[in-house]
Amino acid sequence: MIQNDLLLRVANGEPSHRPPVWLMRQAGRILPQYRKLRSTFSGFKEFIKTPHAVAEATLQPVDELGVDAAIIFSDILVIPEAMGLDYDMVEKKGPLFPTTIQQPTDIDSLASGEEAANRLQYVFEGLRQTKAAINNRLPLIGFSGAPWTLAAYMIEGSGSKTFSKAKRFLYQHPDAAHRLLDKLADTIIAYLRLKVQNGADLLQLFDSWAGILGPEQYRTFAIPYLQRICQAFPDTPVTVFSKNAWFALQELGQLDCQVIGLDWNTSVAYAKSQIRTDKRLQGNLDPCALYAAPESVEKQTLDMLQNFGGAHIANLGHGVYPDTPLDNVRRFVDTVKSFSYS
Amino acid sequence: MIQNDLLLRVANGEPSHRPPVWLMRQAGRILPQYRKLRSTFSGFKEFIKTPHAVAEATLQPVDELGVDAAIIFSDILVIPEAMGLDYDMVEKKGPLFPTTIQQPTDIDSLASGEEAANRLQYVFEGLRQTKAAINNRLPLIGFSGAPWTLAAYMIEGSGSKTFSKAKRFLYQHPDAAHRLLDKLADTIIAYLRLKVQNGADLLQLFDSWAGILGPEQYRTFAIPYLQRICQAFPDTPVTVFSKNAWFALQELGQLDCQVIGLDWNTSVAYAKSQIRTDKRLQGNLDPCALYAAPESVEKQTLDMLQNFGGAHIANLGHGVYPDTPLDNVRRFVDTVKSFSYS
Repeated sequence: MIQNDLLLRVANGEPSHRPPVWLMRQAGRILPQYRKLRSTFSGFKEFIKTPHAVAEATLQPVDELGVDAAIIFSDILVIPEAMGLDYDMVEKKGPLFPTTIQQPTDIDSLASGEEAANRLQYVFEGLRQTKAAINNRLPLIGFSGAPWTLAAYMIEGSGSKTFSKAKRFLYQHPDAAHRLLDKLADTIIAYLRLKVQNGADLLQLFDSWAGILGPEQYRTFAIPYLQRICQAFPDTPVTVFSKNAWFALQELGQLDCQVIGLDWNTSVAYAKSQIRTDKRLQGNLDPCALYAAPESVEKQTLDMLQNFGGAHIANLGHGVYPDTPLDNVRRFVDTVKSFSYS
Repeated sequence: MIQNDLLLRVANGEPSHRPPVWLMRQAGRILPQYRKLRSTFSGFKEFIKTPHAVAEATLQPVDELGVDAAIIFSDILVIPEAMGLDYDMVEKKGPLFPTTIQQPTDIDSLASGEEAANRLQYVFEGLRQTKAAINNRLPLIGFSGAPWTLAAYMIEGSGSKTFSKAKRFLYQHPDAAHRLLDKLADTIIAYLRLKVQNGADLLQLFDSWAGILGPEQYRTFAIPYLQRICQAFPDTPVTVFSKNAWFALQELGQLDCQVIGLDWNTSVAYAKSQIRTDKRLQGNLDPCALYAAPESVEKQTLDMLQNFGGAHIANLGHGVYPDTPLDNVRRFVDTVKSFSYS
């Protein structure tokens, strides 16, 4: 059905002649056509709520870069909003929640599960339009923030170097924290189910703030919820990308998911020593490596490909930075596509 | 000579009945007397350049909390300033450098070594006044930012989530980066020598932005300079605290230093598997654990002490957060002081 199904085959554990390649944040500011499209909307949220623009942004890197997958253009914070916590996306500052979770009772009134997920029809319409535009050329990735990362934003109210309010909540109100994470997991499952029904071929969970928890807190407040989500999708490949959660790699490596995303801090040797060998690994070139000279980009990409050696989905170790030279992004993609396991 | 020399004895590898205890950022906003003293200065830099205020701030936690060490009140960015890159400390935002290193030639005019260190007389006068006020009660720790962290600020110009400008410089201008790190190491050595001559009994290096480098970059751009600094102080115990550099713990653990500082992400078991057994470990309670109920603070502190088991300097895994309840800080300190290895 799908013409270039390399990513699906590798995610499902089949052998391949080369790794598939895509970039986190490939639909974004690195592309001139994205910046042009973005400029037609006054706000970021208006943009992601406009299905035809979502389809256009999602397809841009496919056409421009020739990557092996599309990832639906959206934001992880649509879920808190659907649960009842609205947010603003402040230019150059990031998200800001006017209302946050401060007391355990603040959790009571949050919507969850299908009720919350059903409010996100603009996402599903965006998926349908994207799917039609892809026209079976390649797979479409759907994603969600992971429960802990979304909880962190809902309590902290914004990005933070320490997320100390969110962590304080875990220490002071562990039962309420579990109640919030439970509602989030229910909502994420319902949301991702609807994404699959509307065209997502693979799923990825972003636990962007995993690294601010210690090993014990991550074991308590993150792993069980990730596992519940993974188990809800027996028929769709799931990638878990827990940023900076090196200390939990062994537990992440035992989740019922197909792929573990790695950040650039993590050496392939360490990852392989921790993660169950039946999983595939995704990553992990340093996004800053794409600032180097083109020959250096090629060399570092080849080094990475050889280090992984197989069962690998080529990507960066983080989202591509907006000011990355487009030619270097192209060099990265082309290097992977010309590579062959031998 | 020093009445309570527990920290010195443990740092030097002697056995002890309990670990010594102090907190990173103990001289700071957790103390009402600090906030009062701070309010008498319009700017933070004016504050750290006033020797009698430095002595007062340094002694406050000693008198209030009964910790086993004083750490001189100062800032890691005094070194870039002495080298010729002035900075502003912007309230609630952090440091901002009006001029940054953008080109390799920007490094040429930077002062370094003794020439730069000699410009920091206000630090050394602060040390002398502090030393006199301590009156041999307990040891005084002197510190410096590590070369990579200071270089990161000098290139980036401010704090950053990604430090992508600083990392780009490493990828684009590796030789110039080495030249900058070399000048920084020379200056840090001269600076710390003068700190020792003016009363510092131990030294600590803060590599706060270690974790944004990958393993190979850290091996190239950080480890050799840390080692040069460690080797310059054969007679003074040195602690290296490289935040989030879990991926380099084995190399850090082979430096010619006495103590390795650990952040709260790092389990004791992992640290001991990586670090040479003749070293002592410092850390590593999650600063957010001090937001919990007092009984929980005590329990978590005891768990930590038992996990380390010996050859340990009790501390947090990061600087104490300004809004930490003082009673919980006290509970942490008192729990360590009542503990006994058995």
